[in-house]
Amino acid sequence: MRSSRITITPIYGIPRVRKGEDLPSLVISAMGKTGLELQDGDVVVITQKIISKAEGMAIDLTDVTPGRKARRLAKSMSKDPRVVELILREAKRVVRSGHGVMITETRHGFVCANSGVDQSNVDEGYATILPVDPDSSARRIRRELEKRTGRKVAVVITDTFGRPWREGQVDVAIGCSGIRPLSSLKGTLDPYGYRLKVTEPAVVDEIAAASELVMRKLDMVPAALVRGARYERGETGIGSLIRQRKIDLFR
Amino acid sequence: MRSSRITITPIYGIPRVRKGEDLPSLVISAMGKTGLELQDGDVVVITQKIISKAEGMAIDLTDVTPGRKARRLAKSMSKDPRVVELILREAKRVVRSGHGVMITETRHGFVCANSGVDQSNVDEGYATILPVDPDSSARRIRRELEKRTGRKVAVVITDTFGRPWREGQVDVAIGCSGIRPLSSLKGTLDPYGYRLKVTEPAVVDEIAAASELVMRKLDMVPAALVRGARYERGETGIGSLIRQRKIDLFR
Repeated sequence: MRSSRITITPIYGIPRVRKGEDLPSLVISAMGKTGLELQDGDVVVITQKIISKAEGMAIDLTDVTPGRKARRLAKSMSKDPRVVELILREAKRVVRSGHGVMITETRHGFVCANSGVDQSNVDEGYATILPVDPDSSARRIRRELEKRTGRKVAVVITDTFGRPWREGQVDVAIGCSGIRPLSSLKGTLDPYGYRLKVTEPAVVDEIAAASELVMRKLDMVPAALVRGARYERGETGIGSLIRQRKIDLFR
Repeated sequence: MRSSRITITPIYGIPRVRKGEDLPSLVISAMGKTGLELQDGDVVVITQKIISKAEGMAIDLTDVTPGRKARRLAKSMSKDPRVVELILREAKRVVRSGHGVMITETRHGFVCANSGVDQSNVDEGYATILPVDPDSSARRIRRELEKRTGRKVAVVITDTFGRPWREGQVDVAIGCSGIRPLSSLKGTLDPYGYRLKVTEPAVVDEIAAASELVMRKLDMVPAALVRGARYERGETGIGSLIRQRKIDLFR
């Protein structure tokens, strides 16, 4: 099947999100205001930040009492000890720390800076932590979007991660529903007859990265619509994208 | 400035590329056949594979004599010793090896599998190595495209990299011209008044990842056109994206 054009459209007009908010409604209503309607195959990309807020994962830092380890680390890294306490609580383990950065493995298995704890785009004195189960969050939203519009769509939840070896960040998927994270080409022949051995494009991460191009942090655009992307429908969730620790050369 | 829609269009009709081929001509001619015309601000994304081929970087494996180290490694990893010899020649050093994978640091400073040496989408008995200086390759192509069309464009050269901690691959930029790789938001205030400390979207990598969505390996689509992306024009090249070894926690 030949690919055709893909479009990535920012979804403007989603208001500041508070706990308990009905995200599918906010997305549909914001899309409606700019004449966008969901079509079969569309991927709705939503940043972690508003999922966390809607799910009550914006934490009031005055409620956080840093323990001894958090206080010690905070001092050595010039960070807020309450934020470090949150980072440690969210971490299964600290993978590396240094140069003012803590790289941790979250309870979900993501390896990222600060366990995903983030103070940007949130009220002063608060920090967001990652959703408890981003695949479930994506599934709930997808089902609700499908119920209200009658369209078959996919939902990808993104966060902004740094990476080893390269400066800068890209958005990656931390949860998904209605889409298989990997598109395996293993075992297929390329046009020259060579059998591909390892090729598995991480479609959800490519969609996440693509979306960041229209969701820049200063613009209050916490969602985007990706149309025309080829992907396999599936419900394996982001877990299938996380490399098992025993075969990971960098963990 | 508000983002608007971004489109990513596969560039079909580029024939198999051989050494010495005039890539800007091939791109313009392929675009013309499908009614695409370059506009100011467009980003032309081209895969490493056809750059390497045009620059004579498809290596006949019968010309490669594996040394002792290559033979030993090849045996332990069930790889072709001539391919391992190429991997070692292209590497400044081996970062990790195991589970049948060699992670190396290339002469350019990229950390990736097999120094970028690749046997897919190339004639049997050949393997491609990365271009000697992908930023220069991008610059030559950008200048030629601009000269022939009168448009100001950017060029990004991509390759498919795996990554630690996550299965699957995404395309990343290995060379660029006419675009700054990072878009620094450091020091700016987000809409909540929080001062961003580390935010630097790696725009070229996001564009690379987005393009892979239309350039799937089985389709003979070695180029794509990205239109509508916001980026800063610049000539810092991909070098500015490579983390210095002394502050890298994973090298």
